[in-house]
Amino acid sequence: MNISFDERLDGELVRRDKTEVLTDLQQAVPTLTLLHREEDLHPFECDGLAAYRILPMLVALPETLDEVEGLLKRCHALGVPVVTRGAGTGLSGGALPLERGVLLVMSRFNQILKVDPEARLARVQPGVRNLAISEAAAPFGLYYAPDPSSQIACSIGGNVAENAGGVHCLKYGLTVHNVMRVDVLTIEGEHMTLGSEALDAPGFDLLALMNGSEGMLGVVTEITVKLLPKPETAKVLMASFDDVEKAGRAVGDIIAAGIIPGGLEMMDKLAIKAAEDFVKAGYPLDAEAILLCELDGVEADVDDDCDTVRRVLTEAGATDIQQARDDAERAKFWAGRKNAFPAVGRMSPDYYCMDGTIPRRELPRVLKGIAALSEESGLLVANVFHAGDGNMHPLILFDANKEGELALAEDVGGKILELCVAAGGSITGEHGVGREKINQMCSQFQPDELSIFHALKAAFDPQGLLNPGKNIPTLARCAEFGAMHVHNNELPHPDLPRF
Amino acid sequence: MNISFDERLDGELVRRDKTEVLTDLQQAVPTLTLLHREEDLHPFECDGLAAYRILPMLVALPETLDEVEGLLKRCHALGVPVVTRGAGTGLSGGALPLERGVLLVMSRFNQILKVDPEARLARVQPGVRNLAISEAAAPFGLYYAPDPSSQIACSIGGNVAENAGGVHCLKYGLTVHNVMRVDVLTIEGEHMTLGSEALDAPGFDLLALMNGSEGMLGVVTEITVKLLPKPETAKVLMASFDDVEKAGRAVGDIIAAGIIPGGLEMMDKLAIKAAEDFVKAGYPLDAEAILLCELDGVEADVDDDCDTVRRVLTEAGATDIQQARDDAERAKFWAGRKNAFPAVGRMSPDYYCMDGTIPRRELPRVLKGIAALSEESGLLVANVFHAGDGNMHPLILFDANKEGELALAEDVGGKILELCVAAGGSITGEHGVGREKINQMCSQFQPDELSIFHALKAAFDPQGLLNPGKNIPTLARCAEFGAMHVHNNELPHPDLPRF
Repeated sequence: MNISFDERLDGELVRRDKTEVLTDLQQAVPTLTLLHREEDLHPFECDGLAAYRILPMLVALPETLDEVEGLLKRCHALGVPVVTRGAGTGLSGGALPLERGVLLVMSRFNQILKVDPEARLARVQPGVRNLAISEAAAPFGLYYAPDPSSQIACSIGGNVAENAGGVHCLKYGLTVHNVMRVDVLTIEGEHMTLGSEALDAPGFDLLALMNGSEGMLGVVTEITVKLLPKPETAKVLMASFDDVEKAGRAVGDIIAAGIIPGGLEMMDKLAIKAAEDFVKAGYPLDAEAILLCELDGVEADVDDDCDTVRRVLTEAGATDIQQARDDAERAKFWAGRKNAFPAVGRMSPDYYCMDGTIPRRELPRVLKGIAALSEESGLLVANVFHAGDGNMHPLILFDANKEGELALAEDVGGKILELCVAAGGSITGEHGVGREKINQMCSQFQPDELSIFHALKAAFDPQGLLNPGKNIPTLARCAEFGAMHVHNNELPHPDLPRF
Repeated sequence: MNISFDERLDGELVRRDKTEVLTDLQQAVPTLTLLHREEDLHPFECDGLAAYRILPMLVALPETLDEVEGLLKRCHALGVPVVTRGAGTGLSGGALPLERGVLLVMSRFNQILKVDPEARLARVQPGVRNLAISEAAAPFGLYYAPDPSSQIACSIGGNVAENAGGVHCLKYGLTVHNVMRVDVLTIEGEHMTLGSEALDAPGFDLLALMNGSEGMLGVVTEITVKLLPKPETAKVLMASFDDVEKAGRAVGDIIAAGIIPGGLEMMDKLAIKAAEDFVKAGYPLDAEAILLCELDGVEADVDDDCDTVRRVLTEAGATDIQQARDDAERAKFWAGRKNAFPAVGRMSPDYYCMDGTIPRRELPRVLKGIAALSEESGLLVANVFHAGDGNMHPLILFDANKEGELALAEDVGGKILELCVAAGGSITGEHGVGREKINQMCSQFQPDELSIFHALKAAFDPQGLLNPGKNIPTLARCAEFGAMHVHNNELPHPDLPRF
C-alpha cells in the first residue's frame, strides 16, 4: 500500500547528495556503523504502522554516545534531517524515515545501567526493551508500570518519545508519570540532563516536554525510570454484557464507586470473537461486550474491592461475572486482550487502529456513534480499549485490495477521531501523532496553539532537522486540510519557521 | 528589611507613567477595579516572602474573564509588565510586584464551578482556596490530594504557578500530577485550553509546562483538578531517634521495604521544641529527631503496613514508636508539623526557609553538611521536611537587626542549596524559584539549558511582559553571579531576549 506524501512537510530542507553525506559521516565518525545499500535499508522503511513506507537515505547504528554526538553535529552542519528510531513498534509512523534523512537507530543502546531498589529507580539506555526493565527489577520485588501491548519488543526510548501507555496506566500513569530523568543530546550535539533523581526540578518542565515529543526536540540517550513494588496480589474479574453501551456505563460506575482498578479494559463482540479464535482466552462468545477488571494490592484490600466491583457490575446489568481462579487463568484472560490486535488482523486483510481518548462518561455515546459510522460505511469495527481511562482503540477492518476501501477506512477513522475531539477528548491517548494523525492535529488545535508548538520546537531545533513532518502540522497544511480558521485568506504568523 | 534589586531584571521594559497607564486601563476596561493610591497598594507589596517588598504601580482586581482579557490586551499594547498573584502565600517571592508593573490579583475568581464525582474532577476558578476544593468534594467521599502547609489560605491558581507540593505528594504527586486541564489567557489576551478531561493530549505537553511556570507563560483562568477517593482510614506513627542521621536512614529503609506512606515527615530537635512549645503536639522533647509516618488506605492494608513500618523503624534504631490512638491525636501530631514554620518563627526574630530537594539516600550526608554549616556560621538551623520525597526545609534562624546576620543567613542558605545540587538534587521542591532563588538557578543550570528556558518563555510572551525577573535568570545575571561558564569573555547567545 502506498501513501502519497506532502513533500512540503520536509520540503524546505536542503537536498544533500547521499554519497556526499555518507562520505562526510564516515570521515567524521569513522567507527559508526552506517547502512547505505538499498537491500540493507529495506528493513527500516517503516515502523509498526506498516501502511506508510519510505526508504531512508542512510541508517546509522551507533554504539557509543560519542558516535551519536558526532553524527548529530555533522547532520546539523550539513542540514540533514535525523529521524530517531527505537524498536520500530510505534503505531503512528513516528519513526517513519525520510528519503533525504538519516535514520538514527538506537537499538544498540540496550544496557540496563543500574537497578537501585532503595531509591526504587532504574537507569537504562533507550534501546532497552520495556519488559526487560521489569525483569531486571523482579528480583527486588519491583517492576516498571507502563505496559504497552508491545512491551516484549518496544524500547523505553520509544516509550518516552510517544509517551506510551498500557493497561496499567489508569492506576499508575503514562510514561511521563514514571520517568524521573532523561539525558538528551540536542541536534547541535550538546548534552542536557532533564529532571533528576530528586523530586521536581526548577524552571520550566522540560522533562515533561520531552515525553511525547516524538524525537523532535532531542535524542534521548539515557532514561531513569521509577520502579514500583509488585502488588502482593492481583485478581481479575470478567463481566459479560448483552449491550455494549451498558458495559460502557459500568466503567464509569466502577470508578465512581471509589475503586481505581489496576486495569479496566473493554472488548466488543467482534474483538471477543477474534481474540477467542486466536488464543482461546475463555471469553464468552455470546456476549456483546466484556469488561476485564484487574484489582491489585494487598490480599484483604483486593478481596474487598472485588466484592464492590461485583456489586457494581451486577447493578450495571452484567449477565455473567467470572473471576480468574488462579494466575494461569488470569494470564489467559489478559492474553486475549493483549493479542487483540493481531487477532483482529487474522479476520481481515487489513485493519486500521485508532487511538482516541474521551472523558469516561462519554463512552456510551461515542460507542453508539462508532456503531453508526460502521453501519453507514459497511466496514466492520472491532472495539478494544483501555476503558478505565477513556482510551479507545477502534480497529477498522478493510481490504486494501478492494477499490476505495483504504480511503473509506481512513475516512471512518478520521470521523471517529473527530467524534472523540467533539466529546471533549483527543486524537491520541498513547500511540502518538506521528505521521498518521498529522491532519487531525488541525482539528484538535487552534492556530495560536500550533504557533506555540512551532516556537517550542524552534527553541530546541531552530532548523527543524529532528523528525520533520511528524507530530505538529505546519500552519499551511492545516489551512489546506480545512480545519483551520484562516481570516482574510491570510495564514496566521506566516513568518514562523516550518518543520 | 530591604533587598537591593538588580534593575536590569526588568530594565529593558518601557517605563510608562502611572497616570497614563491608569487612565488607559480605566477607559479600556471601565468596570475593572483598579487600586492606585499608595495606601491601597501597601497590602500587596509582598507575598509570603515578606523580606522582599516592592510597591506595585497599580493593582487590578478583576471579576470577569472579559476584564482580565481587556487588561492583558492593554498591558500588551502599552508594554506594561503584569505580575499575577493568587492568595499571596508563596514563599519564594513569585508574586513580588514590580514598581513599574500591574499586579493582577485573581482573588475574586473564587467560584467552584463544578464537582463531578463520576469523573472525579472539579472545575474551579484560580482564586479558590486549596482546602475549599477538598471541602466541596467531601460530601462525595473525595478530596484534592496536594496539601501545602498553607492550604487554608493558598489559592489553587498559585498552586499551579508554583507546582505546589505538601505532605501527601510522596504518594499522590505534586500539583502537576493532579491537574487535568487549565484555561489560560496569553499576554495578548488569547484564550487557550491546555489538557482536557480525557487522558493525555497530543503535541507537546503545554499543560505540564504551565505548572510551575510562575505566571511567566500566561494567566490561568480556570483549573480542572483530579479528585481522589478519601482513604477508608489513615494512621500515624511517630518514631523518636537519638540521632538525626539514623532518622534520615530510616526514611530510605521504609521506602525500600515496599511501603509508600501517605506522608513521611521529619523534624529535628530544634523544630520539635518549637512546635511542642507552640501547639502541644505531644512530641518527645528529648529526641534528636522524629519521623511522622502516615499510612492510608483500607483498614487491613494499613494495619499490615503499620506492622512493617514499626519493624523497619525499630531496626533503624528508633528509641520510641507511638501510634496516634485516634483521629484527634493524629490531627495533633500533624498540627505540630503543619505549624512548624510559625512555631520556629516564635523562637527567633527572623528565619529563612529553604526548599531544596535531594535523592532520599543522600539525607544522612546532607543533614551532616547542614549541621556543619550551622556550627561554622553560629546560626541555628531547624530542620523540617518532607523526608519521604527528599524535600528539605531547613529554617535558618537569624536576627535581621544584628549587623551582618541577614547576609550570613543568605550565605548559609545558598550553601545549603549548593549542597543539594551537588548531591544530585535541586534548589526547590515545591516553593518555586520566584525572586528569591534566581541566583541559585545559575548553579542548577548550564547556559544551554537556560537558553532553552528563554526561548520557551519567548514562545508564549516574546516581549517578556509576564512576571519578568522571576524564575529564570538572564544569562548576564548568571555571568555576574559567577556560576556560569563564560568563554573568551563572551556571553553565550548574546542576542537572546532578556526577561
